[in-house]
Amino acid sequence: MTTVAVVGVGVIGRSWARAFARGGCSVRVYDQSADQVERALRWLHADEVPPGVVAATSLDEALDGADYVQESGPEDLRVRRALFAEMDAIAGVGAVLASSTSAQDPDDFAGALAGASRCIVAHPVSPPHVIPLVEVLGTTASAGDTVERACQILAEIGSSPVRMRRYVPGFLLNRLQSALLREAIHLVTSGAATVADIDTVVRDGLGPRWAALGPFAAAHTNDDGGVAGYFTRFADDYRDEMDSLGPTPAFDAAQIEMLADGVADMLDDTSVDDLRSWRDDAITRVLAARGVTSPYRGSATPVQTAAAGDHRR
Amino acid sequence: MTTVAVVGVGVIGRSWARAFARGGCSVRVYDQSADQVERALRWLHADEVPPGVVAATSLDEALDGADYVQESGPEDLRVRRALFAEMDAIAGVGAVLASSTSAQDPDDFAGALAGASRCIVAHPVSPPHVIPLVEVLGTTASAGDTVERACQILAEIGSSPVRMRRYVPGFLLNRLQSALLREAIHLVTSGAATVADIDTVVRDGLGPRWAALGPFAAAHTNDDGGVAGYFTRFADDYRDEMDSLGPTPAFDAAQIEMLADGVADMLDDTSVDDLRSWRDDAITRVLAARGVTSPYRGSATPVQTAAAGDHRR
Repeated sequence: MTTVAVVGVGVIGRSWARAFARGGCSVRVYDQSADQVERALRWLHADEVPPGVVAATSLDEALDGADYVQESGPEDLRVRRALFAEMDAIAGVGAVLASSTSAQDPDDFAGALAGASRCIVAHPVSPPHVIPLVEVLGTTASAGDTVERACQILAEIGSSPVRMRRYVPGFLLNRLQSALLREAIHLVTSGAATVADIDTVVRDGLGPRWAALGPFAAAHTNDDGGVAGYFTRFADDYRDEMDSLGPTPAFDAAQIEMLADGVADMLDDTSVDDLRSWRDDAITRVLAARGVTSPYRGSATPVQTAAAGDHRR
Repeated sequence: MTTVAVVGVGVIGRSWARAFARGGCSVRVYDQSADQVERALRWLHADEVPPGVVAATSLDEALDGADYVQESGPEDLRVRRALFAEMDAIAGVGAVLASSTSAQDPDDFAGALAGASRCIVAHPVSPPHVIPLVEVLGTTASAGDTVERACQILAEIGSSPVRMRRYVPGFLLNRLQSALLREAIHLVTSGAATVADIDTVVRDGLGPRWAALGPFAAAHTNDDGGVAGYFTRFADDYRDEMDSLGPTPAFDAAQIEMLADGVADMLDDTSVDDLRSWRDDAITRVLAARGVTSPYRGSATPVQTAAAGDHRR
């Protein structure tokens, strides 16, 4: 049985605790704030989490005997650097130390440590007990086997780890998301579409397709000659269309107000919390419906095993 | 009962015929090529299409008494212009004439016709009997009621029509798709990710979320203060990240070969046809699982009612 320490149990950390516990790990949760631990346990308990989550009262206690540590603290480089130094001094020799950071280069917070080679980024998509993808990146000092072990542990709990080849700002997922969002905001602020139009186009058009096939496999289905035939046939059109995409938005107060008004208009009176609940239920249903096998090599793409309802925040 | 003429029955047209027939319309299919009609009927018949599809042997016969015409011919402006002139001369006074074009401005192929005001674009996502979204745009001459009637007919068959405010190249969906694809190709060609990495990130990360919530509702869930709080907090990060996105790819032979190799590597020996079948089944399951009601205003977002398997190509 894998022993996992979850360090920092805000919204992401507690979701990690649920994912590891559901995956059969022995889980210790720790946070500098005892209140936060209390809240996390209440949240986990309300969901009837499988047994195996215990609260640790110190970082030493949390890390004692841990095979894998998942840190989900604030995105402050100095704080994270100090925390990783402390964890590296405490953790047993074979333990992997992983950070949930969505932005930092692991070399910047762990590259100078004696244990740099066992430190990695394991960036989840929020919330990790619902969405399988995790982006994994070692430090420059990492031997491949640390990343390999982390990916194995993550795959065993039903996550879908992707190894990044090197650090790029925003990693992969947020860059792809930003690319779409940049054009979405451009279309709204230029008057070509409303906020609700864009959301409908994505959820009734692109989203269902991308839940089944990624963009390259999808392109492969668009031509009897597959992706090579498709990109060859439409190379000129794609170049023109891509060249015509909008610039980075200003994100000034007027723009943000315009977008917020559009969202308010689109969502009636649904609260942010109710929207999150609905989202998590819907994503869980979608992933279960997609099925475990696929035409992708390796076939059994890991799929979260949560039943609908298994994720109240 | 709405009478629909489907003009041009290649892959898109026959899929339209299935969607209209399933939606309870009386459907006539017509194509200049009798072979194409034969193939479409075989495809429709193998799927045990509801009764109500008949083959017309001429454009006149197809359009006689039609309330709505869906044209899915080649993307050739001169061909489409001539076809719309012919259809406008034949069709009854109340009929809507819609084109499946993914690229052309309706003013360019129908703006000069006597019946310009009843001509529209109704651009589906392939295949329209599986994916609900349809982008609708009238000519400049269109009174709002043509677009209104078309959207009603499309909503009645379970499609999800979005009205475009004005012509923009690529309409909405393909622009958003191109934005993501541009960055996806950049990440692969710059060595930051493989084709398989990108597809995993999208299908196990972004896709399932976007099948539930569009990008603006998703942003709304990312902050207790909703979308305004979220974009305000991350305005600087978003601007930096968006400014760092990659340029339009070359789409030259070497790049296309690199992408095609990545796809071949990712998909084992799956044929394009098998991949399409799997895709259509998976999307149908995903949409059924998402459910009919949602937190979006109007709530009952139309959802395709096809059962899994109801779409063999």
